[in-house]
Amino acid sequence: GHAVIVGWNERAREVLLRLARQDASMRFVLIDATVPSHPLSDVPVHFIKGLASDDAVLEKANIREARFLLITADPHKAEAEADKDTIVTLLAAKSLNPSVYAIVEILTSRNVQNAFRAGADEVIQTNLLASFAMTASLRSPGAASVWETALHRLDGQTLRLLEPDEQQIGQPFAAVQQQLLKQNVALLGVIHGDHRAISVAPDRPIQQSDRLFVLAP
Amino acid sequence: GHAVIVGWNERAREVLLRLARQDASMRFVLIDATVPSHPLSDVPVHFIKGLASDDAVLEKANIREARFLLITADPHKAEAEADKDTIVTLLAAKSLNPSVYAIVEILTSRNVQNAFRAGADEVIQTNLLASFAMTASLRSPGAASVWETALHRLDGQTLRLLEPDEQQIGQPFAAVQQQLLKQNVALLGVIHGDHRAISVAPDRPIQQSDRLFVLAP
Ligand SMILES: [Ca+2]
Ligand SMILES: [Ca+2]
Repeated sequence: GHAVIVGWNERAREVLLRLARQDASMRFVLIDATVPSHPLSDVPVHFIKGLASDDAVLEKANIREARFLLITADPHKAEAEADKDTIVTLLAAKSLNPSVYAIVEILTSRNVQNAFRAGADEVIQTNLLASFAMTASLRSPGAASVWETALHRLDGQTLRLLEPDEQQIGQPFAAVQQQLLKQNVALLGVIHGDHRAISVAPDRPIQQSDRLFVLAP
Repeated sequence: GHAVIVGWNERAREVLLRLARQDASMRFVLIDATVPSHPLSDVPVHFIKGLASDDAVLEKANIREARFLLITADPHKAEAEADKDTIVTLLAAKSLNPSVYAIVEILTSRNVQNAFRAGADEVIQTNLLASFAMTASLRSPGAASVWETALHRLDGQTLRLLEPDEQQIGQPFAAVQQQLLKQNVALLGVIHGDHRAISVAPDRPIQQSDRLFVLAP
């Protein structure tokens, strides 16, 4: 299964470069209506020029066999307009392939729910991420930029959310953190099943519904 | 010292709402040329209509006595154009008040260095943050959205970067993590002085040049 990426912009470029470095086996199809030709010659991407909301263009991208769909927001449009484009494209893609795992970028908070209604599996709220970084920097100068620097320099490592395996369930956080360290995986915290808290309490046993928030190679 | 915020958009709205909830003592001046009147009546913000690159407008915002300056990118412009506006405004503000702590949002990677040359203290690369989230989700479905959900629900808590205090220096990571937990502060990891690694090794002693990456109330 390949990944279909909609929209050529700075974010798509970063994602393609990073993924191509990290996982050489992943195949990509890029759909964009504005750039005239293949924009990234050094990454193995199949480029299709056209509107991604058009069924024929999605078929050309072999959406029916795609595993992932990433729709990025069009930076040339007003925020609400870009979100509407995204939602229409998502509806078209999900009707052709209901099981594609769809990650969509949404700019306006009022369209987040609409994206989920249209079948999004994940919504990336870029403005929310940016505002968290801005708020962190205003409250604690340096926070956002060091976080960014760290993420950037730790290139090849990725923030991941792992399900605990059978062995880890029931063990204290600190013990699991130690075990993971031996595999060069940094366990930053545990996200409780209800998503309401991040815990780093060393003695708290890992539960089946927990997710391990890690920085992994 | 107040905070001057340039540009009215989704990010500025989130930042103002979040900061006003978290710290009632902070005062804000918002500069925007496009909205006709005060856009956020329930937050104590002084609104100035005008172009922030104009010295007279910056003087009206009392930039000379401001402690913080946050310049957000104009979502109505092309990415490179928005960045140029940001850099020109930053130059004007820093010439009126060289000691204002300037946090600027930059959209194109090629303008990051220009922003630092113009005096930025921190650069928020929104596209980079978004692409990290997208990459994480493509490699580990669920990662980005749970991280976002967690940040959102843990409202009132903030990611911060703390300098270790005298007492903490020399103590093992695990001991400092335990101490901070008693103050409801989750120590997620330690960023080494050279920014090249995030460590969660429990036995590694905290060093003076380390920064503690925490989630704090
Ligand atoms: Ca679904
Ligand atoms: Ca400076």
